[in-house]
Amino acid sequence: MNAEIIAVGSELLLGQINNTNARFISSQLTELGIHIYHHTVVGDNPRRLLQAIEIAESRADIIIFSGGLGPTKDDLTKETIAQHLNVNLVQNDQAMASIQHFFDVRNRVMTDNNKKQALVLDGATVLTNRHGMAPGMFYETDKHFYMLLPGPPSELEPMFQFEAKPLLASIVSDGEQIVSQVLHFYGIGESALEVEVSDLLDLTNPTVAPLASDGEVMLRITAQAESEIRARELIEPIQQEILQRVGKHFYGINDDSLSSKLVEMLIDNKLTIAAAESLTAGRFMATLADIPGVGEALQGGVVVYNEEMKIKQLDISRELLEEYTVVSSQCAEAMALSAREKFDADIGVGLTGAAGPDAHDGSPAGTVWIGIAIKDTVHTYKLQLSAQRNTNRLLAVKACQNFIIQLLSEQGYSKLKNS
Amino acid sequence: MNAEIIAVGSELLLGQINNTNARFISSQLTELGIHIYHHTVVGDNPRRLLQAIEIAESRADIIIFSGGLGPTKDDLTKETIAQHLNVNLVQNDQAMASIQHFFDVRNRVMTDNNKKQALVLDGATVLTNRHGMAPGMFYETDKHFYMLLPGPPSELEPMFQFEAKPLLASIVSDGEQIVSQVLHFYGIGESALEVEVSDLLDLTNPTVAPLASDGEVMLRITAQAESEIRARELIEPIQQEILQRVGKHFYGINDDSLSSKLVEMLIDNKLTIAAAESLTAGRFMATLADIPGVGEALQGGVVVYNEEMKIKQLDISRELLEEYTVVSSQCAEAMALSAREKFDADIGVGLTGAAGPDAHDGSPAGTVWIGIAIKDTVHTYKLQLSAQRNTNRLLAVKACQNFIIQLLSEQGYSKLKNS
Repeated sequence: MNAEIIAVGSELLLGQINNTNARFISSQLTELGIHIYHHTVVGDNPRRLLQAIEIAESRADIIIFSGGLGPTKDDLTKETIAQHLNVNLVQNDQAMASIQHFFDVRNRVMTDNNKKQALVLDGATVLTNRHGMAPGMFYETDKHFYMLLPGPPSELEPMFQFEAKPLLASIVSDGEQIVSQVLHFYGIGESALEVEVSDLLDLTNPTVAPLASDGEVMLRITAQAESEIRARELIEPIQQEILQRVGKHFYGINDDSLSSKLVEMLIDNKLTIAAAESLTAGRFMATLADIPGVGEALQGGVVVYNEEMKIKQLDISRELLEEYTVVSSQCAEAMALSAREKFDADIGVGLTGAAGPDAHDGSPAGTVWIGIAIKDTVHTYKLQLSAQRNTNRLLAVKACQNFIIQLLSEQGYSKLKNS
Repeated sequence: MNAEIIAVGSELLLGQINNTNARFISSQLTELGIHIYHHTVVGDNPRRLLQAIEIAESRADIIIFSGGLGPTKDDLTKETIAQHLNVNLVQNDQAMASIQHFFDVRNRVMTDNNKKQALVLDGATVLTNRHGMAPGMFYETDKHFYMLLPGPPSELEPMFQFEAKPLLASIVSDGEQIVSQVLHFYGIGESALEVEVSDLLDLTNPTVAPLASDGEVMLRITAQAESEIRARELIEPIQQEILQRVGKHFYGINDDSLSSKLVEMLIDNKLTIAAAESLTAGRFMATLADIPGVGEALQGGVVVYNEEMKIKQLDISRELLEEYTVVSSQCAEAMALSAREKFDADIGVGLTGAAGPDAHDGSPAGTVWIGIAIKDTVHTYKLQLSAQRNTNRLLAVKACQNFIIQLLSEQGYSKLKNS
């Protein structure tokens, strides 16, 4: 079984939004062992959508559409498919009631164009939309499966999880299972990593493939077998071999992120953390708080975006800043110590630097100093980054998370899981 | 002239990363007046890549590839194109020197597999990679233009801006110009907005199309004419008509974001801002700091992630929290006032609530209270959100930014530009 994802929407082709739906659906299909060989994006144009459908039918078993189910005149995905398959559109009473309910609970009057959303392909399985109005559809012919999903990710994602995924799982349950395991590394480049594992990249089952994004590198191990258990048995020895070679840079698997790993280690060891942030302006703390349950570990901290605030809020001496500047090891150390003390935490973090585009206090754009106060020591680290402003800020946050994970590991706090 | 973007990489099809390159390139091509009718994603598979190239050649003039130029065995974009076009790959000395330099400045030893990156299509214009190793290429045949760009966005984006875009601009300068103007709205739903402007959606030149993302709605006005000036003249009266109908919810155009608009208003009016954040944990401040120059306006603030820290850092009374809980108008107000005072700012912001997935202090997930202290008043606002944890946090930040923009406008601070 293989699938193609067709996203419909001129806003994608004009570069106004990312096609995050294709990513989400792909990761879900991969879990089900369904191969995806193509993503296609077409605009709100029935002729080109029809052509895309015909190409997809020539190379995929399952065709999944996102977008074009809404109330506006541009929305014509189901109309085009209905015409192509010669199927009528009929009103679905449950969807109509749900649309009415959507307006009722919000005390808003339903405009007429919303009624079009209750039309579905005659004979389709209707998928409930719990976070919006347009229902999804699943339609089967002799040759293909068609899945129609709404465009907004907040509607598509839960609909996929609760309605579409079980339907697809029931289709593919006879076939072979594909299992992928992703190993995450930090602090090693993509080509250096590849050299270490180059012989493994020639394997055929499981396969091993490197990938890189946002300053991180990953290795994906993918096995295909008659069962998930058997596929995992194929993956296991290869994973062990990789970790033996480059385990020093390994920090997590699959959905792990530096944030989730750090929060997990803090909670497991009953450690609390506080931060003083300058160039990152709260992003370090906000990123930790992406992880549910972080309240057990994150005390809080301060954002001190100028020199006066560093002096006033953190009691850093004016003399220190005059002698060493705010972009210095000394300032990062003082920020870390002050954050730890003022917020009653076990670990204090200081982040200061020149995010760019301009130099700051005599340091070129991309210079970052990180201080980490833990037990009796303050560790400081210098980064010299060369990306643009907000990428530099993101990389500073990631590097800082990685330094803390490494320090905790070195100091004997809980070993990383799966390593 | 029309273009198709082909992204190459199995990591895209496995749902491990978003195809942000397609979005970036599309927005850049749109500025040049180049139509994009398709995005395609294929894996690291030469047969399917070849098929994708043939389909693209049948419907596009310019084919832009991203990814598959790196050092690893999976990287085979240029090899596949070379074979398809019957062109040799030859070593480019400047690229080779640049790759060597990349390792030298990092004090790392170059591994042999990196040399493959210096191979280019014979006869291609070579595009310098200032942030990585693999050079880009621009190759022209009788029928098509081929642009090959590296996959990592930090390499692709500057290469496109400085090298690829000028080349493409020189190709299309004879043709008609397409100009798009995007109007951003906040606080109105997509279908409510569409009802207000429904007659305008039938126009053909300019066209008007609604789009929605991350809780915001936009209208895109697109005109085509023999010159950019003439296209803008077509857009102008339609924009005025739209603003007359729904200007109340309008906040900016094109690349404006709530953050950039708010920072611009603060700087223009010489106002400073500070925040006390609970559920958003620094994201409000970090989002403002995405905007270069924010240092003139952002003093800083605190993240107080638990009740004790709200008491200790912000001097909020325990009695207040016991009587009203931390998820309350009273707490948001106290946070806003305390942030303003402690950080010597003109405007103080307080953000508190239950991000989810669980209820917090008696309030259901999605309950958010925002306090904004400005001049002699503290304004408080309640949101009841229904998305997932981190979307709720993002929406809280956006709503807060919008409330401040509205308050500043109402109080006679600089009128929004273009309205």
